[in-house]
Amino acid sequence: MNTQTILLASRPQGTPTAEQFRFETREVPAPTAGQVLLKTRYVSVDPYMRGRMSAAKSYVAPFEVGAPIVGGIVAEVVESHSDKLPVGSVVVGSLPWQEYNVTDAQAVNQVPADKAPASYFLGLLGMPGLTAYFGLLDICQPKAGETVVVSGAAGAVGMIVGQLAKIHGARVIGTAGSDEKVAYLKELGFDEAINYKTTPDIAKALAAAAPNGIDCYFDNVGGAITDAVYDQLNKHARIALCGQISTYNATEAPVGPRPEGKLLKTSTKLQGFIVSDYLDRWPEGVKQLTEWYAQGKLKGEETVTEGFDQIPAAFLGLFKGENTGKAVVKVA
Amino acid sequence: MNTQTILLASRPQGTPTAEQFRFETREVPAPTAGQVLLKTRYVSVDPYMRGRMSAAKSYVAPFEVGAPIVGGIVAEVVESHSDKLPVGSVVVGSLPWQEYNVTDAQAVNQVPADKAPASYFLGLLGMPGLTAYFGLLDICQPKAGETVVVSGAAGAVGMIVGQLAKIHGARVIGTAGSDEKVAYLKELGFDEAINYKTTPDIAKALAAAAPNGIDCYFDNVGGAITDAVYDQLNKHARIALCGQISTYNATEAPVGPRPEGKLLKTSTKLQGFIVSDYLDRWPEGVKQLTEWYAQGKLKGEETVTEGFDQIPAAFLGLFKGENTGKAVVKVA
Repeated sequence: MNTQTILLASRPQGTPTAEQFRFETREVPAPTAGQVLLKTRYVSVDPYMRGRMSAAKSYVAPFEVGAPIVGGIVAEVVESHSDKLPVGSVVVGSLPWQEYNVTDAQAVNQVPADKAPASYFLGLLGMPGLTAYFGLLDICQPKAGETVVVSGAAGAVGMIVGQLAKIHGARVIGTAGSDEKVAYLKELGFDEAINYKTTPDIAKALAAAAPNGIDCYFDNVGGAITDAVYDQLNKHARIALCGQISTYNATEAPVGPRPEGKLLKTSTKLQGFIVSDYLDRWPEGVKQLTEWYAQGKLKGEETVTEGFDQIPAAFLGLFKGENTGKAVVKVA
Repeated sequence: MNTQTILLASRPQGTPTAEQFRFETREVPAPTAGQVLLKTRYVSVDPYMRGRMSAAKSYVAPFEVGAPIVGGIVAEVVESHSDKLPVGSVVVGSLPWQEYNVTDAQAVNQVPADKAPASYFLGLLGMPGLTAYFGLLDICQPKAGETVVVSGAAGAVGMIVGQLAKIHGARVIGTAGSDEKVAYLKELGFDEAINYKTTPDIAKALAAAAPNGIDCYFDNVGGAITDAVYDQLNKHARIALCGQISTYNATEAPVGPRPEGKLLKTSTKLQGFIVSDYLDRWPEGVKQLTEWYAQGKLKGEETVTEGFDQIPAAFLGLFKGENTGKAVVKVA
């Protein structure tokens, strides 16, 4: 049996292009005892994967050139040699970008596919949801009446951060890159949303949206938006440093105003994190997110691209701001 | 009765000079019920006071032009209208730079002058000691065997940070601005000390001194030393952001490499703070510092200037790196 696979053809310099990807047909080995054959249903494309395409050591090991790209996948068990996962089970795991994968049953996690659309386990009820959950609730700890700013607010993580902050009674301001996204954030319940691409003075727009200053900042983006936030922090502000998508494709070390003086005079806490820092608390996070989703307090939003051959395009679209909410590719 | 007083004559642009200070003779009012007349014995000069000389809002209110400069003072009660403070008591408080002050007894704190030299209540057993104590032990929380870097290590706070880190079993590296300071840090028990003024490549020197990477950074200085530290942080590093003396006299907003990407990929926590954030825990801190001092585990080091008229010069000397340990002025 054969499968299509997508390999890393070369490492990008700056913004990745279609040249970085190569499609190949490979043979799928027969599953042995304890293994399952998985048919891919949804593939997750995520900004953090850009980091793995470079050779530099980061918080996740680099992809190897010539090897399949590995990421979040929702799949269905189509052949099973494990009591744990009967045929028909829906699972999520970190797997090669292939139409079919053979893996140990214990390397993937079954998801309750009756409780939510399967793709949500790559978004609202998966890694991005947990990222929002721990970053906002553990690091920022917003209190009712406080002001929370989220950059990249219409992205997979940002849109959940904003909804979680509203559940906790905060005033929520999001930044995003199009009028459509801004409109969607308002629909989701954000108090204010700023189109950073069309707003001439971000600092002024933030000051108008956050007249009482900023208590919490969930940063997915970095750069000029972050600089403007630093100037408007309240005493004892908390910053969850989750991503820096504005710098991921930079070819030179980014330079900007030094933030330390601003963080010092406001006694601000800034905490860098990756969701795996909270691995031991994932069950708590999934349980709480699932509960809020069931109660209608959290909405998922996805940009779904169709077709295995469209995976690279969907990934490249992340850096053009093409997605609102979680970007996933529907494969089967 | 008259006293000399030192007023803020004008706000500095960049590095302050003697022109910013004006000496005047003023009348001292007679103390009334509940008040004491204090004779100044030691005046504290501290880098944070530079911030108060500017009009910009910071974590402490600006000094007013034409009004006396206010700072840490150790004084003796020479006339008392309060049962709380008999004549001869030694007190510490935030008071105008004057030879004599009249104040409410409850506005100052009596110190146990039999337990340590009186000036130590402005240093090791006072505000700088508490700054080191809470910043290192509450924010950085060094573990035995971890590596701690302290910038401005020979300053009033830095030298205590290093000693506290050694008490906790850490490997300690300090940066300072002269060979004499470096030699003194070694005497104090620092494992390594780097003269940042004569070392051509700070990053290389740090890497040699910290072969296992940096777990904790206590930053008094900012700028290039801090940039080099950010590049060598271990996963889950902790940074106590205490001061930025390298930037206090800057006339333009300082610019440098953006740190966020480095803090993100190491899941580093950076916490700005001022000692007053820990006001409710000062008794704990003073008790512990006094105990370690009595046990011979902590040494004070001071640069003592003599004479009330030398206060401005001692203050200006902070920005030329003239002091090793706490800079104080002996007045009487």
